[in-house]
Amino acid sequence: MIELFLIGIGAGNPRHLTLQAIAAMAALDLVLIPRKGVEKDDLAALRRAICAEHLPEGVRVVEFDLPRRDAGDPDYRHGVDAWHDAIAAVWAREMARELPAGGRVGFLVWGDPALYDSTLRIAGRLGRARPVTTRVIPGITAIAALTSGHAIPLNTIGAPFTVTTGRRLREGGWPAGAETLVVMLDGECAFRSLAPEGVSIWWSAYAGMAEEIRLSGPLAAVGAEIVAARAAARARHGWIMDIYLLRREGD
Amino acid sequence: MIELFLIGIGAGNPRHLTLQAIAAMAALDLVLIPRKGVEKDDLAALRRAICAEHLPEGVRVVEFDLPRRDAGDPDYRHGVDAWHDAIAAVWAREMARELPAGGRVGFLVWGDPALYDSTLRIAGRLGRARPVTTRVIPGITAIAALTSGHAIPLNTIGAPFTVTTGRRLREGGWPAGAETLVVMLDGECAFRSLAPEGVSIWWSAYAGMAEEIRLSGPLAAVGAEIVAARAAARARHGWIMDIYLLRREGD
Repeated sequence: MIELFLIGIGAGNPRHLTLQAIAAMAALDLVLIPRKGVEKDDLAALRRAICAEHLPEGVRVVEFDLPRRDAGDPDYRHGVDAWHDAIAAVWAREMARELPAGGRVGFLVWGDPALYDSTLRIAGRLGRARPVTTRVIPGITAIAALTSGHAIPLNTIGAPFTVTTGRRLREGGWPAGAETLVVMLDGECAFRSLAPEGVSIWWSAYAGMAEEIRLSGPLAAVGAEIVAARAAARARHGWIMDIYLLRREGD
Repeated sequence: MIELFLIGIGAGNPRHLTLQAIAAMAALDLVLIPRKGVEKDDLAALRRAICAEHLPEGVRVVEFDLPRRDAGDPDYRHGVDAWHDAIAAVWAREMARELPAGGRVGFLVWGDPALYDSTLRIAGRLGRARPVTTRVIPGITAIAALTSGHAIPLNTIGAPFTVTTGRRLREGGWPAGAETLVVMLDGECAFRSLAPEGVSIWWSAYAGMAEEIRLSGPLAAVGAEIVAARAAARARHGWIMDIYLLRREGD
């Protein structure tokens, strides 16, 4: 019997850890850490620091190489499905080797495990070979790191908001009826594809981390500055993660 | 000089507190606690327990009565604006009395201060009489409590999601183009206004709390059960807070 814990560890600030996450980490037998190209040295160092501070002596930490996704698959969804199957097979192999009699295994997930993260979907592929129960520990999201850094509300009074990706914004434009948009997973400043009139932006890079950068204002006034700041920060750090909120006046 | 801390304390589980929130609480001079009708005894007891565990001896805790909103104002936005002005005046009065020479004052906010909460908007009305700097400490949201309890992802792969209110769903129907909806502030089971075919629901009441109740399944199959469970739980506890996620198949 495997108990699988997907533990949200917050958005890059080690102080985002909750008491619940710390207790869950302390009760693990094993922490599995996927080595992936997208996680740069700064993030890996942060995670090691979190492990060093909060994992008791007896908890084993095992790193493993993540299979690569076949980016050549013309069907995006199919490519992702096949990739998740491959990752689940690696998880099952590591768990069988490290915990042959079962036990508690955890993954430390940046942000919250429900938000643009594949860990839950991969966990859903386990349990065919032997029983697995999955528990999720919620974490501070990059969205909350964004809004807290700027000290702004996410929604206007009683109004909805939509969270989307850079790709969707670029391909589909501003969603009909939306007043507030949060954009994640945007590698290419998709806000440039919008007509900037009447739109304000609050942008953060490395939200929650010591390196956090924030810019905000009317999109027409600060859009170019954000593009430049993003490029400079990326060159300086070798990687970047950013997120932003767009609000359109009077709907 | 007033430093104002809006501290997210999570969605009802005292273990949702982050290390950052605990440190911020410990550094306060004063905690202001609004007494409001909507916060029922269970929540007030939870907050008292959090204060007892994490506030050091020297931090004063002052409760005050919240002004009432004029529900008779025909202009909803105007009524809310006037109400927030009145609350800000009460905050200013309490701060002037308790911290005449300035200091650090905090509000403990359920969930995250950016999400369907008015504390930030009220804080924005201060600073006219004397300078106030506002810092926000992010918290675990009710959304993360919902998805972690059900162990489900918030978004489908690479897809957007919309967070809205019961009123908006009831009045505006299913938002165009949306696949995933999270509904908050719904006192009347607004999902009943939807055509249930092809829609699945994940519903939690008291998400994050010891009393948490979860129901999920195709809306056509479990909708009536949720309505009945909600009414029974509300009668039993004397109050209820619930949240749900709706997902529509194949867009």
